[in-house]
Amino acid sequence: MIDRVENYPGFPGGCSGPEIAARMEEHARGLGLEIISADVVSLEVSDREKIIHCSQGDFLSLTVIIASGATPRRLNLPNEARLIGKGVSYCATCDGAFFRDKKIAVVGGGDCAIQDALFLSRFASNVVVIHRRDTLRACRLLQERAFAQPKITFEWNSKVSEIVGNEKVEALVLQDARTGEYRTISVDGVFVLIGTDPNTQFVKGTVGTDSEGYILTNEDMQTDMPGVFAAGDCRRKSVRQIITAASDGAIAALSAERYIQSLQTV
Amino acid sequence: MIDRVENYPGFPGGCSGPEIAARMEEHARGLGLEIISADVVSLEVSDREKIIHCSQGDFLSLTVIIASGATPRRLNLPNEARLIGKGVSYCATCDGAFFRDKKIAVVGGGDCAIQDALFLSRFASNVVVIHRRDTLRACRLLQERAFAQPKITFEWNSKVSEIVGNEKVEALVLQDARTGEYRTISVDGVFVLIGTDPNTQFVKGTVGTDSEGYILTNEDMQTDMPGVFAAGDCRRKSVRQIITAASDGAIAALSAERYIQSLQTV
Repeated sequence: MIDRVENYPGFPGGCSGPEIAARMEEHARGLGLEIISADVVSLEVSDREKIIHCSQGDFLSLTVIIASGATPRRLNLPNEARLIGKGVSYCATCDGAFFRDKKIAVVGGGDCAIQDALFLSRFASNVVVIHRRDTLRACRLLQERAFAQPKITFEWNSKVSEIVGNEKVEALVLQDARTGEYRTISVDGVFVLIGTDPNTQFVKGTVGTDSEGYILTNEDMQTDMPGVFAAGDCRRKSVRQIITAASDGAIAALSAERYIQSLQTV
Repeated sequence: MIDRVENYPGFPGGCSGPEIAARMEEHARGLGLEIISADVVSLEVSDREKIIHCSQGDFLSLTVIIASGATPRRLNLPNEARLIGKGVSYCATCDGAFFRDKKIAVVGGGDCAIQDALFLSRFASNVVVIHRRDTLRACRLLQERAFAQPKITFEWNSKVSEIVGNEKVEALVLQDARTGEYRTISVDGVFVLIGTDPNTQFVKGTVGTDSEGYILTNEDMQTDMPGVFAAGDCRRKSVRQIITAASDGAIAALSAERYIQSLQTV
């Protein structure tokens, strides 16, 4: 759940994630969309027909748009879920601006983590990067830029063992990977940037994905299975925002319509 | 000017074009965007530096996002501009649903015109396609589908010589291209689908375009000139809606930011 969305154009001052979702749902229902809630188990594609196997039964369709999203990897610490939107974040471009002149921790050492640490250093007074090893995985250029940025410091060989805070994040307890010793650092926020996992287990083996499980599509959102489309965070793409996902959805819907038209025998 | 926008997610019941534009402007200004109104004459790109030549003077920048849009071709008839949003439309997916059980004319004979005639036949009671020749330019498959759709009829060798209506479109006067004779058909709306022209004259020769002038980009909105990006209707793409343009803009902005970061000497 996203506490505050600032980057969906048309909502000056921002809007909560659930509020945008509710407005989109109302909008779509108003135009005649039928929505069924069901847990998808697997997808079966046989030429024209697509069978969506759900725990509540099967659905038959000529076309399917997969928009199952992705889930940021969590640290799986006790306070983590409770403090999302109260200092715990998984998206620097979404939430960075809320931490002006604050002290932020970034957990991770890959390209995204370091890119986002650089991005966050424009708002924050300090950014401390917490990494479990003594070298970063991020590319050399990003590393050099991070090392050159005086606002960014590093806690090497460290893992977060506790997020401290009642109403909001106040501190992190770090454990040294070599000595096992604990120490506490005070922060106003923690960005957990250790990767995301696409929610695409149910299409494994049916639709082409990259090695991480993100569905491969062309610009028209077409997957490698005719009549099966993908939109939003579950597909391989460079920018993951609500606005880009909504655009994917519009394109996928029009592509699906064209696909159905192409099936009609003349 | 678009009278009513139904397909921008998050505005149940729709919203006027100018209202969405105003909300986006307020949103962007609230986040610190500076907006300068100026008429761009040409763009000069010399390695790092981009010079935007305007009638009011030059602007210097490290990066440029071109979002100059496209203009639907008009019939250039006296009542046409006045009746936009009152029966005259240039976008079937935008306005089609307002013509439920109405009689619609489609002007044009290309792929888009026939595709949209088929789309409109789902709402309208009748769709009459007005074409200046006696054969369509659209691909055979689309033609066959249109011929098979009983709601679609054709006025061949005809051109629209007058749009009749005071408060809204009431009829069209057609002229027969062979005999020169005039006849009047009553319609509730007319969709002018004779192509669009990208507003890209000022980048001619600077940035790569297709033969129609649409700017070529990759999925990151990068043109063939480093640091020059394009977003929205001015670029070559398959779906042109507000939501896809807004998404292009978000991607282009992030790409531009990465480009500027890449220029920084470490």
